[in-house]
Amino acid sequence: MAAAPAAAAHPAGASRAPSVVALGGGHGLAASLSALRHLTDRLTAVVTVADDGGSSGRLRRELGGLPPGDLRMALSALCDDSEWGRTWRDVLQHRFTSEGSLHQHATGNLLIATLWELLGDEVAGLDWVGRLLGARGRVLPMAAVPLDIVADVLGLVPGAPGQVTEVRGQVAVASTTGRVATVRLLPPDPPVPPEVVEAVATADWVVLGPGSWFTSVLPHLMVPALAHALTRTAARTCVTLNLAAQPGETDGFSAEAHLEVLAAHAPGLRVDTVLADPVAVTDESALRASAAALGADVVLRTVSAGDGTPRHDALRLAAAYRDVFAAGT
Amino acid sequence: MAAAPAAAAHPAGASRAPSVVALGGGHGLAASLSALRHLTDRLTAVVTVADDGGSSGRLRRELGGLPPGDLRMALSALCDDSEWGRTWRDVLQHRFTSEGSLHQHATGNLLIATLWELLGDEVAGLDWVGRLLGARGRVLPMAAVPLDIVADVLGLVPGAPGQVTEVRGQVAVASTTGRVATVRLLPPDPPVPPEVVEAVATADWVVLGPGSWFTSVLPHLMVPALAHALTRTAARTCVTLNLAAQPGETDGFSAEAHLEVLAAHAPGLRVDTVLADPVAVTDESALRASAAALGADVVLRTVSAGDGTPRHDALRLAAAYRDVFAAGT
Repeated sequence: MAAAPAAAAHPAGASRAPSVVALGGGHGLAASLSALRHLTDRLTAVVTVADDGGSSGRLRRELGGLPPGDLRMALSALCDDSEWGRTWRDVLQHRFTSEGSLHQHATGNLLIATLWELLGDEVAGLDWVGRLLGARGRVLPMAAVPLDIVADVLGLVPGAPGQVTEVRGQVAVASTTGRVATVRLLPPDPPVPPEVVEAVATADWVVLGPGSWFTSVLPHLMVPALAHALTRTAARTCVTLNLAAQPGETDGFSAEAHLEVLAAHAPGLRVDTVLADPVAVTDESALRASAAALGADVVLRTVSAGDGTPRHDALRLAAAYRDVFAAGT
Repeated sequence: MAAAPAAAAHPAGASRAPSVVALGGGHGLAASLSALRHLTDRLTAVVTVADDGGSSGRLRRELGGLPPGDLRMALSALCDDSEWGRTWRDVLQHRFTSEGSLHQHATGNLLIATLWELLGDEVAGLDWVGRLLGARGRVLPMAAVPLDIVADVLGLVPGAPGQVTEVRGQVAVASTTGRVATVRLLPPDPPVPPEVVEAVATADWVVLGPGSWFTSVLPHLMVPALAHALTRTAARTCVTLNLAAQPGETDGFSAEAHLEVLAAHAPGLRVDTVLADPVAVTDESALRASAAALGADVVLRTVSAGDGTPRHDALRLAAAYRDVFAAGT
């Protein structure tokens, strides 16, 4: 019988592996977790809960809880590397295909929603899914209530490029044809699970990005209780830049523009390292200047999959984080 | 970390516990499994796949596979008696409540349907759910394709009590206001998983009932490949009668009438023991005569919960099966 495996001790020795908190959402967070799991099992993902599209958005509207999709993806990225872990990951990631109402629902979203309804406790429910997967780390929601992202967008009004339009909802913001100037959250000061604050406070490293900049990365910095924890922690902080701008959301954004937007949304944030792939950097000195304004050094490493897609390679990214963490200790 | 538990050896020693196959569906099968798990972990449930109502019926229509509900209930009845087993059982048994399309869907049905789509193998999918639950035994579908129950029903035509009306579908048959004369299956000769035939062939005991007589108990006898296995096995057979007639389906049926219907639907079946609660027997000599016609002795035991509902008490039923099995060896 395949049994849920016990957490394996890290090869390098549990006492030496760094404690890492990864902030983000969606595919970007899954990429950073797929890398970080090679370095440590003292790993906590803190995940956006502002999704309002797809299976998650439908569940949020029908059942009223947090959108589970980004949490499911993060848990799946941490599954035990065994037949047991991979099978339950595949179950969680499975989407139904039909002519009916289950079409495109992800089974893991339904499982997480069930545990939340049964236990009445989001963190406990996610911990049970983590046990099911034999997850190498813990996955937490960045807020205890569902959030909405609201953006001020320029360029949506024909003939008035400077006019601001308010766009509401993660899907609408991520796919806007205008240029996002600023984002904010509703509610503006949501409760944050104490486990999140504790993880940030005791971490050796906090990793922010990669991911959809306005809708998966910046939201963490706009939750006051989480931003407060990030500015107070003794942990070092690494910002990982994307491999390409995203159509709509960050169309035409340079690497340094990503950092400038970050600084504008998180005035008190100190950053130690900015990790970027040379493929995404057109003006290295401009990037170094923007990083320096945040207090950060720039580390350039080839971390892309190299297949023409803007995807990170898990092992290359793991090697880059290993170098970043080694240099920072 | 709570891990999926390994199957515990039976206290009496694995070599001495009888190998038991329980045939049925729905709450009746769950009752017999809840009792039998106290006696053996060499336990195989063979479950009807003719449900066309509720969550199972909707999944059968939307996704096209077997109806998973009766299989889910049987698995849940066999869950490991630990926090791990009980939590995942509660997840499987959870039903959503909403104003939307998930209303009344059982999470376990969605999980089983997912494993079937992923693995393309019904038996393997059910075995994975069994591992998740740490199940004390195995749950198999009685056929590899979904079935429809068709009944000839009397008394549905006003003024013509002898006229036969064909009623199709488990829900329609179970709730008919007429009197069910005979039932048959569509397709009439469905494929049976080889694991079912093997379990019947090697069993010490086969237990049939309790349960909805026409829609959960008799269907097993009408699948030719399964009926053939039941008539060839060296296993002894115990038929467990219901505690009360069911409104509609067996309204007004005496205990002996249940046996006569059974004999009519399974001409070659040999029965060793008929287990009945005295509360359901009004004419003991008539019952003994009907049992004798099948080759069976009658064992009378109080096995009801005693709370006024027609429900079996798991431990009383376990004690009764222990006596039946001991007398038959």
